[in-house]
Amino acid sequence: MDHSADPEILRRLKSVEGHVRGVQRMVEEGAYCIDVVNQITAIQRALKKVSARVLDDHLHSCVTDAMRGPDGAAREKVLAELMQVFEATGKS
Amino acid sequence: MDHSADPEILRRLKSVEGHVRGVQRMVEEGAYCIDVVNQITAIQRALKKVSARVLDDHLHSCVTDAMRGPDGAAREKVLAELMQVFEATGKS
Amino acid sequence: MDHSADPEILRRLKSVEGHVRGVQRMVEEGAYCIDVVNQITAIQRALKKVSARVLDDHLHSCVTDAMRGPDGAAREKVLAELMQVFEATGKS
Amino acid sequence: MDHSADPEILRRLKSVEGHVRGVQRMVEEGAYCIDVVNQITAIQRALKKVSARVLDDHLHSCVTDAMRGPDGAAREKVLAELMQVFEATGKS
Repeated sequence: MDHSADPEILRRLKSVEGHVRGVQRMVEEGAYCIDVVNQITAIQRALKKVSARVLDDHLHSCVTDAMRGPDGAAREKVLAELMQVFEATGKS
Repeated sequence: MDHSADPEILRRLKSVEGHVRGVQRMVEEGAYCIDVVNQITAIQRALKKVSARVLDDHLHSCVTDAMRGPDGAAREKVLAELMQVFEATGKS
Repeated sequence: MDHSADPEILRRLKSVEGHVRGVQRMVEEGAYCIDVVNQITAIQRALKKVSARVLDDHLHSCVTDAMRGPDGAAREKVLAELMQVFEATGKS
Repeated sequence: MDHSADPEILRRLKSVEGHVRGVQRMVEEGAYCIDVVNQITAIQRALKKVSARVLDDHLHSCVTDAMRGPDGAAREKVLAELMQVFEATGKS
């Protein structure tokens, strides 16, 4: 499925890429460490929002289709994937 | 101070930038949402390691200098910054 | 629904309670700060596992029922709740 | 050192213990899963604040003493412990 081609997701990932390059410049110019750490934290937060957007699209497409469909194994698969995402979240 | 110009930190930030572009391609090509979310989680984890490296450099330079110096306000400043970093960590 | 009365969830919450009392004793006995912080981190990790268990039960009961049911608003409600849980996770 | 016997830390840990018992009651009474998950998230957040308080006391006592002292190995030990705490934070 190509619902992940949501233009807002791409736009945010390009913004994250620019932010990462900005932090590279800060490091090259000898910025204060704590300012670098704070910018990295801001990037992590922006990435969390991208993940949330992808997950929201996913719930309203793949998960909804699987859960409303007749295939018990497909339902179990999408639920197991949601659990894996939940368990990995915050471990960074 | 330019200790943040540690080449290993720059190298890792360039690797993160490449990873972010890779996720953009995944999104453009309609990759499965969960795969996108998992790659974003991997990037967040890589960023946490960059932060750890910057912080380690910081502890062994600015923090050590301030803590061993005569200026009580400078000591309080580096400790307050460490607390702020700790409190922000994980909130993403 | 009383599926949250899963005995394993109660058992783990009682274990967490005992762990919290153990940390109180450590503090009263003047334990080393870092040991206290590490025990608190262990409790947070145990709580994350309890949440995961509750969420897994929830996906296989309420969420499955709502998603397979005819009520679009009920489906939207369970999906919005999952998003809210995902967004709050890690912010601690 | 007994600076971890800060009465505010004990008071907060007792409050966390009460909160954990409250969630046990919610589970026994068949509360809605999402409400249980949200209360567990609130407990994790409260624990993070306890850790922050312990760490702040630690920075102003053990860490300050070690960093201002003559023993290079003692300084390295407190810095390594701070790094370990930072790296573990958020992994829950």
